[in-house]
Amino acid sequence: MLSLAAAPLGVRTLVVDGSADACAGQVSELVVADWNDDEALEAFAARVDVVTFDFENVPAATAERLAGLTNVFPNPGALSVAQDRLAEKTLFRASGLNTPDFEPVDNRDDLVRAVARIGAPAILKTRRLGYDGKGQFRLKTADDIDAAWAALGEAAASVGLILEAFVPFDRELSVVAVRGRDGAFRTWPLTRNWHVDGVLSLSLAPAPGTSDALEQAAISHARTIAETLDYVGVFALELFVCGAELLGNEMAPRVHNSGHWTIEGAHTSQFENHVRAVLGLPLGDTGVRGASAMLNWIGDMPDPTPVLMVADGHWHDYGKEARPGRKVGHATLCAPDAGSLRTKLAAAGAALGRDEQVAPAVDLLG
Amino acid sequence: MLSLAAAPLGVRTLVVDGSADACAGQVSELVVADWNDDEALEAFAARVDVVTFDFENVPAATAERLAGLTNVFPNPGALSVAQDRLAEKTLFRASGLNTPDFEPVDNRDDLVRAVARIGAPAILKTRRLGYDGKGQFRLKTADDIDAAWAALGEAAASVGLILEAFVPFDRELSVVAVRGRDGAFRTWPLTRNWHVDGVLSLSLAPAPGTSDALEQAAISHARTIAETLDYVGVFALELFVCGAELLGNEMAPRVHNSGHWTIEGAHTSQFENHVRAVLGLPLGDTGVRGASAMLNWIGDMPDPTPVLMVADGHWHDYGKEARPGRKVGHATLCAPDAGSLRTKLAAAGAALGRDEQVAPAVDLLG
Ligand SMILES: Nc1ncnc2c1ncn2[C@@H]1O[C@H](COP(=O)(O)OP(=O)(O)O)[C@@H](O)[C@H]1O
Ligand SMILES: Nc1ncnc2c1ncn2[C@@H]1O[C@H](COP(=O)(O)OP(=O)(O)O)[C@@H](O)[C@H]1O
Ligand SMILES: [Mg+2]
Ligand SMILES: [Mg+2]
Repeated sequence: MLSLAAAPLGVRTLVVDGSADACAGQVSELVVADWNDDEALEAFAARVDVVTFDFENVPAATAERLAGLTNVFPNPGALSVAQDRLAEKTLFRASGLNTPDFEPVDNRDDLVRAVARIGAPAILKTRRLGYDGKGQFRLKTADDIDAAWAALGEAAASVGLILEAFVPFDRELSVVAVRGRDGAFRTWPLTRNWHVDGVLSLSLAPAPGTSDALEQAAISHARTIAETLDYVGVFALELFVCGAELLGNEMAPRVHNSGHWTIEGAHTSQFENHVRAVLGLPLGDTGVRGASAMLNWIGDMPDPTPVLMVADGHWHDYGKEARPGRKVGHATLCAPDAGSLRTKLAAAGAALGRDEQVAPAVDLLG
Repeated sequence: MLSLAAAPLGVRTLVVDGSADACAGQVSELVVADWNDDEALEAFAARVDVVTFDFENVPAATAERLAGLTNVFPNPGALSVAQDRLAEKTLFRASGLNTPDFEPVDNRDDLVRAVARIGAPAILKTRRLGYDGKGQFRLKTADDIDAAWAALGEAAASVGLILEAFVPFDRELSVVAVRGRDGAFRTWPLTRNWHVDGVLSLSLAPAPGTSDALEQAAISHARTIAETLDYVGVFALELFVCGAELLGNEMAPRVHNSGHWTIEGAHTSQFENHVRAVLGLPLGDTGVRGASAMLNWIGDMPDPTPVLMVADGHWHDYGKEARPGRKVGHATLCAPDAGSLRTKLAAAGAALGRDEQVAPAVDLLG
């Protein structure tokens, strides 16, 4: 999606990935190489003006190596903070954004102590390399410590662990934001997100029923964090809303699934603005065209017909092989206002056999 | 632009072009081969489900050869009619769409006779292979016959010639339309076009001040022609408006420059609908998001900054080398209504140093 957004700007992309199947290779030149292959990285760096990422788990060492050879945005320091749930939550708190209570866990004793202090329910997560709910274990009670340790204990040495209080949030929001090389900062309207089994299922933007005060607070946190990290490019700040309070969950140092609706729903997409930002071009307008809903396709693609037949319905098939739990595509429905979006969404959900998936947004818009 | 529209639908494109520089190669796999190379065409056809074109001067023989091997849309017969100004004007008249007066010209005597009958001013054009005003000579008076023959006489044997009455039209419009494999037919709103030296300079959509009757007549002509040709895909019908009368100028059997504004200005772009049509997918909604203006960049690209800084301003750089008279890119400005489009267009024109190029639209919208 970055390559597709870059092309109209006259920007050619060169993608380096360990897999010859990487789907960016469908629309971009692809160099197949390991991200730890120094020689390959050198040859790659020599061919480009700017390096960026669409996956936060590129090793920070790879980013640092590339930064010694060419321009890298976001900077490797920002990337490495955002890669580590402990570092990012520590930064959030230092920036005045509260988070769920947490404790680092390096061994089983740490886990016992952490559960004793934080209480249950709680979530044990890998500090690094987790995504789409992977690398997480939910503890309902302290009795689950053994199961949690059995599931993730082995990962403690390599990627670290963190225990977080399970937050009974009212809703989840994300701020998708972009910061330019000159410090210019813009956000799209807040997005409301629903996860199923830790994986994003549905997004709605602008998030209905968000007060100005909450929106301004969320944006101000995003801005402070971006400035602290001297971040350049698009990122997402994932938030839990608990009553009037905002808690920081994590930040994604990249274009984000909860910003996919911007392709059709906003004047400038997150992908185009990321390209603009890392190249030092002026940032584009983040205003919206109306209301948008994004549905993720997880595991396999449904029949596209119902979406192709909806006015302002948009289909995105990533050309990936079907695999349980894998994000293989998404659809976005746009409408001039919330009421007509609700109608479209309900009809499309029924036609797709995905009533359950659209239900939270249909209810909210009703 | 077709490849970029195909990608989100999960459709991969394979492009065959004689030039290794073909700009589609930036975002698609490119096979470099001559369109007359039968072996290469066979190998190409074996790798694809459907063949289509984004250039009308692909030899009709190539299209026919491919049609013997795989699905080809639009069909080669439709392509060959649209490639020949004599055949297309004859079809227009047979379909009830009047045209400028015309005469085929095979030799100098024909030309003398044609000028005597049609009168001057007139335009001598090659029947085949002309585009962007190339292959045309304008005769102000009968005294220009020698100059016209000197310019184009040599082409008479290979591509044929046609003399057309020069029409003092009030304005130029195009119907950009799409027809599906099942016969479904849709058009975008009429587009108003301004040419400079025979090359499209500026488009405005929806065409302001177009009566319902005129719009319906134009659409009905487009539909009749498409049905007669059993046309599948996007095409443009270029029209001259003379008082209350519509005259058919030509049809472009492909996505058309006057439909570029649909990328951002309509719910479904001409590129996506062409892909949908040739693949037999349902056609997308051709409704608009507001008002749009498209500016062509001819020869070289201006500084993109003023367009990148306009809200809902969109930049398209084809990644082509600068060359006098060559279309190297375009920009589209969108706005919710005509008034705000006028303001944007005037400001962008000034900032780009292109006041003259935007002037006709600014005046009209004022
Ligand atoms: N501390 C928590 N309390 C409640 N729910 C949580 C908590 N942490 C994660 N979740 C739920 O799981 C989802 C995925 O967890 P997250 O930490 O964002 O991991 P990932 O990096 O896989 O997105 C969240 O969006 C949220 O729905
Ligand atoms: N018969 C005509 N009378 C007046 N203007 C014409 C005539 N034919 C062409 N033109 C002008 O020249 C432009 C380009 O001519 P056209 O026949 O459409 O060739 P091309 O295939 O290069 O687009 C038209 O859009 C119109 O502005
Ligand atoms: Mg998350
Ligand atoms: Mg023309």
